[in-house]
Amino acid sequence: MATISDIGLSAAFNVLTAIAFLLAFAFLRLQPINDRVYFPKWYLRGMRDNPISSGAAVQKFVNLDARSYLKFLNWMPAALKMPQDELINHAGLDSVVYLRIYLTGLKIFVPITALAFLVLVPVNWFNDALDGMKKVVHSDIDKLSISNIPNGSKRFIAHLVMAYAITFWTCYILLKEYQIIAKLRLRFLASEKRRPDQFTVLVRNIPQDPDESISELVEHFFLVNHPDNYLRHQVVYNANKLADLVEKKKKMQNWLDYYRLKYERNPSERPTTKTGFLGCFGSKVDAIDYYKSEIEKIGKEEAEERKKVMKDPKSVVPAAFVSFRSRWGAAVCAQTQQTSNPTVWLTEWAPEPRDVYWNNLSIPFVSLTVRRLIIAVAFFFLNFFYVIPITFVQSLANLEGIEKALPFLKPLVELPLIKSFIQGLLPGIVLKIFLIVLPTILMFMSKFEGLISQSSLERRSASKYYIFLFFNVFLGSVIAGSALEQLQKYIHMSANEIPKLIGFSVPMKATFFITYVMVDGWAGVAGEILRLKPLIFFHLKNFFLVKTEKDREEAMDPGSICFDSCEPRIQLYFLLGLVYAAVTPLLLPFILVFFGFAYVVYRHQIINVYNQQYESGAQFWPSVHGRIITALIVSQLLLLGLLSTKGLEEATPVLLVLPVLTFWFFKYCKHRYEPAFVRNPLQEAMRKDTLERAREPNFDLKAYLANSYLHPVFKGTDHDDDRYSTVDDDGWMEEEVLVPTKRHSRRTTPAQSKYDGSDGLSSVPEKS
Amino acid sequence: MATISDIGLSAAFNVLTAIAFLLAFAFLRLQPINDRVYFPKWYLRGMRDNPISSGAAVQKFVNLDARSYLKFLNWMPAALKMPQDELINHAGLDSVVYLRIYLTGLKIFVPITALAFLVLVPVNWFNDALDGMKKVVHSDIDKLSISNIPNGSKRFIAHLVMAYAITFWTCYILLKEYQIIAKLRLRFLASEKRRPDQFTVLVRNIPQDPDESISELVEHFFLVNHPDNYLRHQVVYNANKLADLVEKKKKMQNWLDYYRLKYERNPSERPTTKTGFLGCFGSKVDAIDYYKSEIEKIGKEEAEERKKVMKDPKSVVPAAFVSFRSRWGAAVCAQTQQTSNPTVWLTEWAPEPRDVYWNNLSIPFVSLTVRRLIIAVAFFFLNFFYVIPITFVQSLANLEGIEKALPFLKPLVELPLIKSFIQGLLPGIVLKIFLIVLPTILMFMSKFEGLISQSSLERRSASKYYIFLFFNVFLGSVIAGSALEQLQKYIHMSANEIPKLIGFSVPMKATFFITYVMVDGWAGVAGEILRLKPLIFFHLKNFFLVKTEKDREEAMDPGSICFDSCEPRIQLYFLLGLVYAAVTPLLLPFILVFFGFAYVVYRHQIINVYNQQYESGAQFWPSVHGRIITALIVSQLLLLGLLSTKGLEEATPVLLVLPVLTFWFFKYCKHRYEPAFVRNPLQEAMRKDTLERAREPNFDLKAYLANSYLHPVFKGTDHDDDRYSTVDDDGWMEEEVLVPTKRHSRRTTPAQSKYDGSDGLSSVPEKS
Repeated sequence: MATISDIGLSAAFNVLTAIAFLLAFAFLRLQPINDRVYFPKWYLRGMRDNPISSGAAVQKFVNLDARSYLKFLNWMPAALKMPQDELINHAGLDSVVYLRIYLTGLKIFVPITALAFLVLVPVNWFNDALDGMKKVVHSDIDKLSISNIPNGSKRFIAHLVMAYAITFWTCYILLKEYQIIAKLRLRFLASEKRRPDQFTVLVRNIPQDPDESISELVEHFFLVNHPDNYLRHQVVYNANKLADLVEKKKKMQNWLDYYRLKYERNPSERPTTKTGFLGCFGSKVDAIDYYKSEIEKIGKEEAEERKKVMKDPKSVVPAAFVSFRSRWGAAVCAQTQQTSNPTVWLTEWAPEPRDVYWNNLSIPFVSLTVRRLIIAVAFFFLNFFYVIPITFVQSLANLEGIEKALPFLKPLVELPLIKSFIQGLLPGIVLKIFLIVLPTILMFMSKFEGLISQSSLERRSASKYYIFLFFNVFLGSVIAGSALEQLQKYIHMSANEIPKLIGFSVPMKATFFITYVMVDGWAGVAGEILRLKPLIFFHLKNFFLVKTEKDREEAMDPGSICFDSCEPRIQLYFLLGLVYAAVTPLLLPFILVFFGFAYVVYRHQIINVYNQQYESGAQFWPSVHGRIITALIVSQLLLLGLLSTKGLEEATPVLLVLPVLTFWFFKYCKHRYEPAFVRNPLQEAMRKDTLERAREPNFDLKAYLANSYLHPVFKGTDHDDDRYSTVDDDGWMEEEVLVPTKRHSRRTTPAQSKYDGSDGLSSVPEKS
Repeated sequence: MATISDIGLSAAFNVLTAIAFLLAFAFLRLQPINDRVYFPKWYLRGMRDNPISSGAAVQKFVNLDARSYLKFLNWMPAALKMPQDELINHAGLDSVVYLRIYLTGLKIFVPITALAFLVLVPVNWFNDALDGMKKVVHSDIDKLSISNIPNGSKRFIAHLVMAYAITFWTCYILLKEYQIIAKLRLRFLASEKRRPDQFTVLVRNIPQDPDESISELVEHFFLVNHPDNYLRHQVVYNANKLADLVEKKKKMQNWLDYYRLKYERNPSERPTTKTGFLGCFGSKVDAIDYYKSEIEKIGKEEAEERKKVMKDPKSVVPAAFVSFRSRWGAAVCAQTQQTSNPTVWLTEWAPEPRDVYWNNLSIPFVSLTVRRLIIAVAFFFLNFFYVIPITFVQSLANLEGIEKALPFLKPLVELPLIKSFIQGLLPGIVLKIFLIVLPTILMFMSKFEGLISQSSLERRSASKYYIFLFFNVFLGSVIAGSALEQLQKYIHMSANEIPKLIGFSVPMKATFFITYVMVDGWAGVAGEILRLKPLIFFHLKNFFLVKTEKDREEAMDPGSICFDSCEPRIQLYFLLGLVYAAVTPLLLPFILVFFGFAYVVYRHQIINVYNQQYESGAQFWPSVHGRIITALIVSQLLLLGLLSTKGLEEATPVLLVLPVLTFWFFKYCKHRYEPAFVRNPLQEAMRKDTLERAREPNFDLKAYLANSYLHPVFKGTDHDDDRYSTVDDDGWMEEEVLVPTKRHSRRTTPAQSKYDGSDGLSSVPEKS
């Protein structure tokens, strides 16, 4: 069992790692050459073009201003400076609300920590239950925890009261946050400029008709059933093959650029390549000629496919984006059932054009329900069988295990420093590596389930990931059994034995989780700000591929928030905090440090780095809220189990009130606030319509909406803008007016922020 | 333990009771004097006025035609004759679909019974596990059940296959039924004539406004947000006190009529009454004068209250019925969210005017959620503590218990006939009496929860009643422990032990449930057709109160289906049938007889007796479907538990597939068919609107809708029609046009049925 010095060493190590990362970041970000790695957001918003304004050539790459190095932590206050409204303008509401998750953590845990240290720590410390039990090995940490109180003591009343205080405080903060975020969302939606998705509804499962094409069918249906509101529609093409071709062509173009650059730099030798697998096998050919001809070939294929897709009625999938004359009309259509058969003509709000997940638009209803069953079963097995390798490796990472498996290492691991290192760090790292692979699998599962927008895919994956973390990381670590063993235990135990078993083990695992918080929460977050991978890739690309400014822009990899994997991990901290608040309050400060530090780091990243992939208007908040409530209920049940093993069965009814009340609170919030995140109220729609009609009575909405929901492969996108900007029409596209597709033009940017997030002392001047 | 001769005696007794009831019914229904008791539906529909056409005075009361007595079972084929469309016209869709529950039972259980007797009975019979166990007392019935197969036998494969067959057959029938009923509902809605509720939406939780009255607020809100569709609205008055006064006055009027009649018959003596409690205490006064003055007093109070309600803005509750120009407009408003705050301006389809439960219209949102919590907790306690008296009485009703408690009865109860009677009948009767009280309590709970229509109240009560029956009747009888004991058992047992415990006891309780089916299902249903209580009350009222034809009409008590208490009881038979199908197939024929007999009886009652209280268009079917699925899953789990006590643990994974698939089937049906029972599709609304606009372009909808959603106390109702038919208006009622309120005029009755449900041989000719 880890002692307090193990924890201390681990803490020191993690703090040093974090500081090393921060120093490296402070140094690297000041170098103009890295400007596009650490400030890509500003480039994407068109507010920076170049890190250089004037000065010597060497200043192009290295910052020689010594003063700027002195204030290496200055980015922190800078990141905190930008006011909320600015930030919403700058990075979208999703990002701002995402940051509020950390803030919520602080709001919940700062008072709880204070209270726990004022009340519980003294109550726990002045006991000697553990000193009495000589046979049980224990450390000073356990003296601070509930384990130190003898069975049946009256002092447990303190913990009972604390459980009530935690519940009420958490619910109070959650309620306040839900109110604030609902208000933010409504203000955001109200203040938004005109956007295509406000007028558009996605219609799926359009039934087949032998006499009419899908396009005609849609038009007739909506002309009949929404006669006053229907404006136009856009059918959806099955352009997956075409998109593949475009993608392939782009890759070839990259290689061509690479070899051209190589040839320019060294004109004496014409570069060659091999035609086989990965350019390593097959016959040697002239690289430039080879790629030129390949591109031409693919270009022809692409043109043919393009024609085929647009001519062949079979390539039209039974889904369409239907636009209405007013937001009111769209709101009505999205919220109502169209026909008596609820499996056809399904309508819902269209996601933003950039948010649409095109591959899933054409899945029929029965297939969807079957897919859901399959994924439910598959996820069950993934959840309960995936843990086997984790526990296997964790059991190896235990000292005795290593000494047994590899006896020759014994002298080495017996060294006190290494011993502490292994005990303190390794289990956390093993876990971490496993968790990195997982989100990809879960995202694949969600895609298979048939969700139709990137944002909903991420939300669904996040739910799955949270369930996984809960069973495998939290319970897996507490009970320390393989998932199958856990499952068997649960099945063979009575409903009141399960909380007892888990609750009993909870206090003993506090040190493990403290280590986990430090590795994942402290060093991990510091690693996030360093952006090592994008840094390396940017410089590699910059050296090998980049010719023009546009290429350089493409070489930036700003990344995004990654809601699907980051949010469940934050939730794990909520869970740990709530579970240990009444049991081992010592864990709380570690979690507080995580929330504070992560808040600053992610605020900085959101301001300067991440590129928003979509804007859902904080639609994820209900699930965040729900998961914090889940954590709260779990913590109540575990405390109940723990106390009943401590000879305090009479506390059960007192504690049983809490989960009932908490669940009721959840239901109340769900009814009271969730609709604001799901449905679009008619009053708001009508208000915006009226305003807009008064302001711009002659606005040509039909032209504005044309092509906004065309598959991106048909549109001039950022990469291949002028190549396909005008689509030849076979009567299927009435208007040729193109909407601007550059992302930043869609967001409101009235003026540049005074606080631009880079610290203001940076030597890198901006083009304002 | 009951032997096969106990069962035989009990069966004989119940069959005889049932036949006695049927004979009594056959005799009584032919007497003209009882015509209004056994055929009230025809009077209410205005198709019969008088049982007498011609003949001697004595024929007014007694049927002297001997031939008609010979064919005393003729009502049965007559009840079956009326075709479905006629029946829908005659008694509404709710009644027809209610009958389909019995039909579904027949469809599910006829093939299952055949299969079970072909396969399982031989498999079970040719074993000797029970003969081997000398110590366990058993009867021949157990030899037909799964108990007769030795542990670990390969013969259990037959039961496994049977479980699969039952599941697939049940699901197949359920799917077909759902399809048929969804189609019936849609056709019914499409064929309906114009009704106020098609155009009307109930708006609740209207926010307070300091500047505007609720009526103005509603008008402004809907003029702004539904400008093209809004037509008019009707505010809701808190008229509960007024309704009480009207009710009180009516009672007084009854007494006055009674005493006047008494005085007419015996003019020599002026009737007197006492003014105190129940007319038994206090000073003696002249009855006619007393009641006259009382009526006058209440009449004044009523007039004042009526004025107050209409003048005082405080008596307007924050709810309103808003009507639209078209069905489309109402469908849109009912299905959409109006404002960003989801707790105000809540809209939903207005129930039929006669279906509205007026008292609950003004409950605010927070209060509703609190009420739901309170009822959930209260129902939990009711469910688990109510059983104590049942088991107490049941344990008394056991032979040894009686002999111990009342030793002097010993010689009596030891008589074989009485012994069998007690063992076979008493537990069932005890249960039955308890179950009669319960629905009233449950209905009160549902009312407290705040539902706003009679139909939803009945559906909610039915759910509660089913849960109650499941835990207390089914599980309570199987485990035979008090509810508290059960609860403790469940908490202290592991999840896989519970099905084992219950499954193990299931075969042993077969005889008890057979008795229960006979008492509740056979004799009970036969008692229903006799209508003893309404018969007696009708003749009492007829003698003491009736002066005019109208009074006589009021004295009829046709009753209605009582969905809230009858449907859960049918569900109990589904549960018993599915659970015992693979365990003790001998139970199945008893259930088949119940379904068949009850179908005929209730069809007769629906045609000739019951008066429809509301028409929900079969909205209850999703919950009926859900409960049959629940029963199916329970039966699968119990079989799983039973087989694992039989040394067949390896069957668990094979059987575990079934509940997963069944649950998926439930989800599929829910998504596929349930919306047709909840939402109103726009296409249908638009179709009806268009048709109607073409047919009657000048129809005055506003006039048609005026006053249709006025509190019944303001309208001329059946009882006090001409007294309040014109309401004086203070500007709150724009039109004076009154809609016809006689119920039968609202339903389509194109022509009288050829098959009128009375057997056609009856001596009672009809006015056609």
